[in-house]
Amino acid sequence: MTDLLFLGIDGGGTKCRARLRDAKGTLLGEGTGGPSNIRLDPELVWNSLLTACREALAQAGLHEDDLKRIHAGMGAAGAGQTSAVERLLSRGHPFASFEIETDAHTAWLGAFKGGDGAILIVGTGSCGYGGTSGQCHYVGGWGYEISDEGSGAAIGRELLRRCIWAHDGRIAATPLSDAVLAEFKNDLEILVDWVGKARPADYGRYAPLVLQHAERRDPLGIAIVEDAAAGLSAIGMRLLDLGAPAICLFGGLSEPLRPWLSPPVQRTIAEPMADALDGAILLARMALQEGRP
Amino acid sequence: MTDLLFLGIDGGGTKCRARLRDAKGTLLGEGTGGPSNIRLDPELVWNSLLTACREALAQAGLHEDDLKRIHAGMGAAGAGQTSAVERLLSRGHPFASFEIETDAHTAWLGAFKGGDGAILIVGTGSCGYGGTSGQCHYVGGWGYEISDEGSGAAIGRELLRRCIWAHDGRIAATPLSDAVLAEFKNDLEILVDWVGKARPADYGRYAPLVLQHAERRDPLGIAIVEDAAAGLSAIGMRLLDLGAPAICLFGGLSEPLRPWLSPPVQRTIAEPMADALDGAILLARMALQEGRP
Repeated sequence: MTDLLFLGIDGGGTKCRARLRDAKGTLLGEGTGGPSNIRLDPELVWNSLLTACREALAQAGLHEDDLKRIHAGMGAAGAGQTSAVERLLSRGHPFASFEIETDAHTAWLGAFKGGDGAILIVGTGSCGYGGTSGQCHYVGGWGYEISDEGSGAAIGRELLRRCIWAHDGRIAATPLSDAVLAEFKNDLEILVDWVGKARPADYGRYAPLVLQHAERRDPLGIAIVEDAAAGLSAIGMRLLDLGAPAICLFGGLSEPLRPWLSPPVQRTIAEPMADALDGAILLARMALQEGRP
Repeated sequence: MTDLLFLGIDGGGTKCRARLRDAKGTLLGEGTGGPSNIRLDPELVWNSLLTACREALAQAGLHEDDLKRIHAGMGAAGAGQTSAVERLLSRGHPFASFEIETDAHTAWLGAFKGGDGAILIVGTGSCGYGGTSGQCHYVGGWGYEISDEGSGAAIGRELLRRCIWAHDGRIAATPLSDAVLAEFKNDLEILVDWVGKARPADYGRYAPLVLQHAERRDPLGIAIVEDAAAGLSAIGMRLLDLGAPAICLFGGLSEPLRPWLSPPVQRTIAEPMADALDGAILLARMALQEGRP
């Protein structure tokens, strides 16, 4: 077992991270690469992935040849889509074994080391995941258009909707609506043109502004943040109903939104035992133990 | 003045209608043509428009030569966008005069013959428009993504969002959520694939189903319809605040949603004096009186 190498990979839409450990768990090296949401072009994803992996190998004083000793686990955005995983693996892989799961699953594995519990990810999107006795469920996380309550994208889009209300006179203007409408020269045609080209991350960039204004007691900011927190709390409460004894928060918006969450959810928040990269390493170890290829 | 001809055109996304009257207001003929949202290809729009116009001319026993005697007015979806109007008129027009306004403006002109009042259009989209002393304002109507509260598209999208809640167990399932989820084989991946391709009209096709279930006291149906009606009522109340003494409803969803509107809005609902085609004819007459080209 001492010759075994375990590689954990965290594949996101903007970058890819890798961590190499030996069988005893000793850290051997880390690396980073480019975008690796596995819905992207497989060529691009493999390039990002191997860049991160080779950097980790080099830090460990290991070589290309050692790739075949590696048992790899990857948590990747987009891995819920079976066809995307199959496309990525259609030309094989250089590892001794390679297990792919969603980024939610590896974050959860790291957070609870496979034990009972749930995670709530809040960034540009939002997603709940967890359960008991290894039986996990997703709650939300089906994308910006009809899901992802409380996410940065949802907050930004709701902001622009309510700025139109303020512009029309349907609600009172506030410093927040004034600031946003001024960005668009108080011209809703310009705003609508922007919306026509906006992606979830573009909406999400407004979330910090909304949070700032809410902290300053801007009524519009407070209304939007309260709605977002209510949506997230509903996800959290469902995770608790499914039997999770604790919830770990992940994602760039989880810390600022945490004090706004419903007390029954807040009381269950725990620190993760390990991060998603170690969750991915655990994924690889579990697959090896279970004798999967 | 007796030789003058007035043509009213109603240009929508799916079809174009035209009505021809003489200076005394006598109906001479009507016609229909294809899609004429003026954001579409100008060639296509002119084709739809002239098809409708020639049919009206033929009914009146008139000919191609008479086009140049016609003072035309058109209310068109998309006419709020100046560049689209300019593109349509870039190669001139065959009429003695041609005035283009939004479909909301001609509906309003018809409804109140240019007097004080407001309209509320509720179809796939939603929009409020009206005012006093000829000073009109839009309230809402900035599109499905960040506006159009209470519209068919908004109702359908909210339905799918809440069906995910029911699927996750965040809310109780109801006959409505069961029926919709069954359409997608209870598989959220199939639902999300559908959403990826859905246009506002696709979401809007769920509105009648939601209304049916609400009338049967389905809790999910009621919650969605109440939200939609609250959004529309907020638009209506703003129109009243702007001085409109009455509101005329237009669009396929306005009748079923009417009983759900807030009583202060419901009490002001009036029947339109004339339709949008006669509003477009009035637009042409007013332009001629004011000596516009």
